[in-house]
Amino acid sequence: MKEDDLIELLSQNAPSRSDVIAGIGEDCAVIETGLPDKWLLFKVEAVVENIHFESTTPAKLVGRKALNRSISDIAAMGGIPTHALITIGIPDSSLFSWVQEAYEGIYHQAKKYEIAVVGGETTRSPKVIFINISLLGYVEKDRCIFRNRGLQVGDGLFVTGELGGSLDRKHLEFEPRLEQARWLTSHFPIRAMIDLSDGLATDLPRMLKGTSLGAELLKEAIPISKEARLRFQEGRSSKTPLEAALTDGEDFELLFALPPGYAVALLDAWKRTFPDIPLSCVGKVINTPGIYIRSRKTIEPLDLYGYDHLTQS
Amino acid sequence: MKEDDLIELLSQNAPSRSDVIAGIGEDCAVIETGLPDKWLLFKVEAVVENIHFESTTPAKLVGRKALNRSISDIAAMGGIPTHALITIGIPDSSLFSWVQEAYEGIYHQAKKYEIAVVGGETTRSPKVIFINISLLGYVEKDRCIFRNRGLQVGDGLFVTGELGGSLDRKHLEFEPRLEQARWLTSHFPIRAMIDLSDGLATDLPRMLKGTSLGAELLKEAIPISKEARLRFQEGRSSKTPLEAALTDGEDFELLFALPPGYAVALLDAWKRTFPDIPLSCVGKVINTPGIYIRSRKTIEPLDLYGYDHLTQS
Repeated sequence: MKEDDLIELLSQNAPSRSDVIAGIGEDCAVIETGLPDKWLLFKVEAVVENIHFESTTPAKLVGRKALNRSISDIAAMGGIPTHALITIGIPDSSLFSWVQEAYEGIYHQAKKYEIAVVGGETTRSPKVIFINISLLGYVEKDRCIFRNRGLQVGDGLFVTGELGGSLDRKHLEFEPRLEQARWLTSHFPIRAMIDLSDGLATDLPRMLKGTSLGAELLKEAIPISKEARLRFQEGRSSKTPLEAALTDGEDFELLFALPPGYAVALLDAWKRTFPDIPLSCVGKVINTPGIYIRSRKTIEPLDLYGYDHLTQS
Repeated sequence: MKEDDLIELLSQNAPSRSDVIAGIGEDCAVIETGLPDKWLLFKVEAVVENIHFESTTPAKLVGRKALNRSISDIAAMGGIPTHALITIGIPDSSLFSWVQEAYEGIYHQAKKYEIAVVGGETTRSPKVIFINISLLGYVEKDRCIFRNRGLQVGDGLFVTGELGGSLDRKHLEFEPRLEQARWLTSHFPIRAMIDLSDGLATDLPRMLKGTSLGAELLKEAIPISKEARLRFQEGRSSKTPLEAALTDGEDFELLFALPPGYAVALLDAWKRTFPDIPLSCVGKVINTPGIYIRSRKTIEPLDLYGYDHLTQS
């Protein structure tokens, strides 16, 4: 069985309820609770030793990353995180100090974003350390941004920050784009949004999934990080900087769509509000399925794939 | 550092919010959402290979157990489970069929209890399989049962089902006492409740924690399972049947407290409603801290310890 078939199968058979606004296939589950103005957001993210962090990575940074990954998903729905539960698996009690340091990283970020840590469990995991974070949040119903429910042909596609080379440092130290997402939804009619966890080449198709739309990327407009360039120049990666920007993953930047008429106003207001964070218009939504990349002379289908954590639904 | 010190430390420093009704130290987190009549319940439970299940355990039973553990916690608050997120860690894609079978077990129980599975993730975990379930639920504010907020001296202590020997079969096949918990809170003024995950000798002190109360157990009244007796008789366990009933863990039965005047009415109504499930009055709440066990001739402090999953808060 292939990975996509597995996800498809699991999605098709999943039990649902009438109060589920969005489930599998969005950055977070969105749930109707009976409150007139808000929906509940619900997300889980795991980080596993030797997959998402090295055995030598400081525990504080692992804890920080674990929580930030979930916050990034809440941000991508336009929401605000509120309550977290933590599960940490460790081989034995000699790692209690590791757990304590991981919690320091988690609590630091939780305090920054006013998230309550309301419980958790430290369990035995014989051979590998993992941290699993369950996060609740909420979003005003009129500010909830789905992956593609509002998407239209001609919408501009925007990316925050710079992409690629995250493995050097950013995957541990990134700050989720929560403030930026909230600012975006309060000032502009954002039509679709997703956080870039697996690379633009993987997450853009995810954004378009289930629609008959496609996207055209502008090669020169993709914001390539300094790290992605350095890794290639120094022979630490075989990927060209552009390939790295498209496929490295773990950028945790926002990809969003906006009607084209707002592009200039957005870029102008953004620059004044977040002068230290780049914002790039990287392309547009088209009415032909598939992802294409346009350079000055050519337009070609994009056939790269992003970093693969196995499956995510 | 000792385990208890770790929990204490993590609890003390945990960031909170004013909408947290109960957090660390209860079976579930209890959250105020702004709805007049209900609170939100939030719980996470993990099962790890070679700790909570064997490598040879059928995946369907592992999935079943994983979800049932969380449902048991929601039941112990008097609540109803509603929405779940699933994380499964597997070493590689050769285990996709294992994942599929685990989901069959999860979906089967989810459908039975009308729980929506609203997302999840299958991630790489290099050496060990784990399943992590995050579960939401709700409880009517006037039916939420905390571990000890309502507990009073003289309350009778009751246990559903039979205890001990769960490892033989029950830890995989138990049915969470959801229907029973809901029935209890709608018919009787239950004062405190907890689910027995780590054995009466561990979970009863957990119920009393933070109070100045203690408990007296009646040795002859502890409901010992057939499996606990057989394991001892056949030399498969060195624990006496009583020790097993007190310390084996993973019974997932309910332990609850009720004013003594209701005991007879409860036992009578229970027998008519749940004729196949034993209900035992195992002792009472006393105004001396500590757990004591009374037989016909003696009363002694209980100094056994339950099964230890490391820490749980």
